[in-house]
Amino acid sequence: MANDPQRSGQSDETPQVTRELATWTANFTNRDVTPAARTWAVHTLLDWVGVTVAGASEPLAEILTAQFAEDEGACTVIATGKRARPHDAAMMNGSAGHALDYDDVNASMGGHPSAPVAPVALALGEQLGVTGEDVIRAFIVGYEVECTLGSMGGVEHYNNGYHSTGTMGTFGAAAAAANLMGLNVEQTMNAFGIAATQASGIKSMFGTMTKPLHAGKAATNGLIAAQIAAKGFTAGQDAIECAQGFMAVSAPGFKARHFTAGGNRPMEVENNLFKYHASCYLTHSTIEAVSAIRAQHEIGLDDLKELKLFMPPTHKLVCDIHEPESGLEIKFSIRHLAVMALDGANTAALDMYTDENAASAKYADARTKIVVVEKQLSGKHAGAVSIETKDGRTMVGEVDVGKPATDVDEQWTKLQHKARTVMKPAVGEERTEAIVAAITALPNAASLDDLMAALA
Amino acid sequence: MANDPQRSGQSDETPQVTRELATWTANFTNRDVTPAARTWAVHTLLDWVGVTVAGASEPLAEILTAQFAEDEGACTVIATGKRARPHDAAMMNGSAGHALDYDDVNASMGGHPSAPVAPVALALGEQLGVTGEDVIRAFIVGYEVECTLGSMGGVEHYNNGYHSTGTMGTFGAAAAAANLMGLNVEQTMNAFGIAATQASGIKSMFGTMTKPLHAGKAATNGLIAAQIAAKGFTAGQDAIECAQGFMAVSAPGFKARHFTAGGNRPMEVENNLFKYHASCYLTHSTIEAVSAIRAQHEIGLDDLKELKLFMPPTHKLVCDIHEPESGLEIKFSIRHLAVMALDGANTAALDMYTDENAASAKYADARTKIVVVEKQLSGKHAGAVSIETKDGRTMVGEVDVGKPATDVDEQWTKLQHKARTVMKPAVGEERTEAIVAAITALPNAASLDDLMAALA
Repeated sequence: MANDPQRSGQSDETPQVTRELATWTANFTNRDVTPAARTWAVHTLLDWVGVTVAGASEPLAEILTAQFAEDEGACTVIATGKRARPHDAAMMNGSAGHALDYDDVNASMGGHPSAPVAPVALALGEQLGVTGEDVIRAFIVGYEVECTLGSMGGVEHYNNGYHSTGTMGTFGAAAAAANLMGLNVEQTMNAFGIAATQASGIKSMFGTMTKPLHAGKAATNGLIAAQIAAKGFTAGQDAIECAQGFMAVSAPGFKARHFTAGGNRPMEVENNLFKYHASCYLTHSTIEAVSAIRAQHEIGLDDLKELKLFMPPTHKLVCDIHEPESGLEIKFSIRHLAVMALDGANTAALDMYTDENAASAKYADARTKIVVVEKQLSGKHAGAVSIETKDGRTMVGEVDVGKPATDVDEQWTKLQHKARTVMKPAVGEERTEAIVAAITALPNAASLDDLMAALA
Repeated sequence: MANDPQRSGQSDETPQVTRELATWTANFTNRDVTPAARTWAVHTLLDWVGVTVAGASEPLAEILTAQFAEDEGACTVIATGKRARPHDAAMMNGSAGHALDYDDVNASMGGHPSAPVAPVALALGEQLGVTGEDVIRAFIVGYEVECTLGSMGGVEHYNNGYHSTGTMGTFGAAAAAANLMGLNVEQTMNAFGIAATQASGIKSMFGTMTKPLHAGKAATNGLIAAQIAAKGFTAGQDAIECAQGFMAVSAPGFKARHFTAGGNRPMEVENNLFKYHASCYLTHSTIEAVSAIRAQHEIGLDDLKELKLFMPPTHKLVCDIHEPESGLEIKFSIRHLAVMALDGANTAALDMYTDENAASAKYADARTKIVVVEKQLSGKHAGAVSIETKDGRTMVGEVDVGKPATDVDEQWTKLQHKARTVMKPAVGEERTEAIVAAITALPNAASLDDLMAALA
């Protein structure tokens, strides 16, 4: 029994996960949003908007727009000049947000947290005409719910073939919508049941346009769940934890736990991890370790004698393409990215990931000076390097991008830089600045009008 | 490995299920439709249209209509006076079709075959302006694909918690749409991949409005898969059978087999099983066995001394409510239904399933004369009875509604009777007759105009 208290080891009372999450979701108000959570939510929304604007012109997003966008409708289809009904807008914007795989990550969820939730908060916020504060609140709620369930579901859910962004994200989307629409506890439980029975997305589709679609479908399915639950649609009241419920069929390691949020622990949104490089997340610590050494010691490619990359063997299965032949392969070549970093190349810029870059003789030569050393590091996202220069110096560095930032001001500066970098080529400088300004002003905005005007 | 030929026991070559089904789907033309398959398709469409018209006024269907129907759009939302875009119409009509749980069944699929497929064939057919013959062809294709996959998936899929109507139905819907839109093999493979990653629906939601939603979501998700695949959207090319693909994550008993259709074996639509009583399918054989004895021997309730019902123990878990207290409980009370049948009550009429009927003193008294005897019968849907009358006669009968009808003319008569019975209270006699006439004329109809005018 998935909800056997002996197995969950948490309590002698079986946690009613669906009811507890619904109760929290229905009762979470603007007063419950801490300053820290609000700051992180604004950071996260800026990052999501940036990659969504950039992703909206990817082929997969253009196909969805061609099929589903309209000239009229309550909601903006971001960066397309089109509109749509809320559930279609959520699908299109949700898919665009994950199109570049440059959107954020959360370790508890084991997936991309903003992609399924942000498009629902924005589409509903636009339709309902609520304040920026309300949208931020709903986003925080959805984010919390999907991460809580991701954590309870455990790694077996992902390892067994499910893409948490699609599955857990459906609950996040439903929670954000339920909170923003003001559903009561009973209605929210029904919304979670309707979400549970739609939650889907299999990992074997990675490498195709269908991966980003998972985020878009999670968004629309979660939104639909809340929309019809608000009108009295019924579902199982314990769909997450019941026998043959969502967790039982998809997460063999499920551990039901009582839900507690707030109090002494930060909200999940405060654990958000941002991608500052347009490559596989497992390469980021190495890129940053090399960049830090380059900056501190003022060295470059010409100084290199040997570059040691320390990594666990599992990295080799994901991101150790020795000689990348395309822009896409660069994203999964930790060797190529390390020499780009030593060269001071901008690994954050999407237009660096080209076939020409992959074929660069300078980088091919530098890659021959790399030695990969298998080593378990402090965290699964950590990276460590050792650089020996021609003049006989040795410099070492280790970074772990898997830990949330502690300097949020520095984070905001970096996120603005990233957002501008990815948006300007798509929508130009003026609209980019209008978008950054609208997100910055979101906590005090009376409506989403300014933001949506800039995003249209 | 799910596609290990040693395990499938079919061949020394791993069957490429996705490609084989896509190849067949893409190449199936009107010339491939046999007269028998066409006849069964018309029968099946009449039955689906009937229960959908009746189901459209159920609360769950009304909620979906209130949320998603519009005043304009390419497609008819059946029996509502509303219209919608194809993917929304498929969701609404798909859910309405399963709202009463009075729609058809297929043993290979282990679910309700028409509910996810018919709404897609009709919505797309209306949008594209194709002939009745084309719609029939697409319906046959979708029906075949979902049943083929249901058969390969095995009973473990259902036993592990999945509702095949939602999961397998998504592939059926995608196949019908892909065929009607004229997708090529490659596009159809992508459509199946997009279907695979959306396929969902958990059985633990039974007893709520979410069960019928499974059919509607399968319809819209399958339709969307084909719509965007037609525009170049990509997915895994082996999504059904690949490692961590649809079958691997949901059907531990999956056996990949080469796909063969036509030739010596009938199409799956020719195995369609119709529900002639508005109750649990496991009660139907018993109802029919009692009715046959009543008709043959001209007996009724007043003659009854003892009524023995023979059934396997599994029936007790599903449909053996001893003393039903509501109309809904009658549907799962084989005892109550047996005495209704002996009384000559019309178990096909939806308005017989009332709380007043459940409380009937006459039927409560007759139920005391029932003896249930555990027995394995010839088929899982079979039923056997033995009636002893007060005057000392004993009459026995056994029926198996789990076998497709052999007299299709008699079937057509029964289906028209059922369709009229369920539609007249909903839309009146004139429109009921127009709908029956339009379905009858479908094989030669130049468009769906007449049918849709009657269904609007």
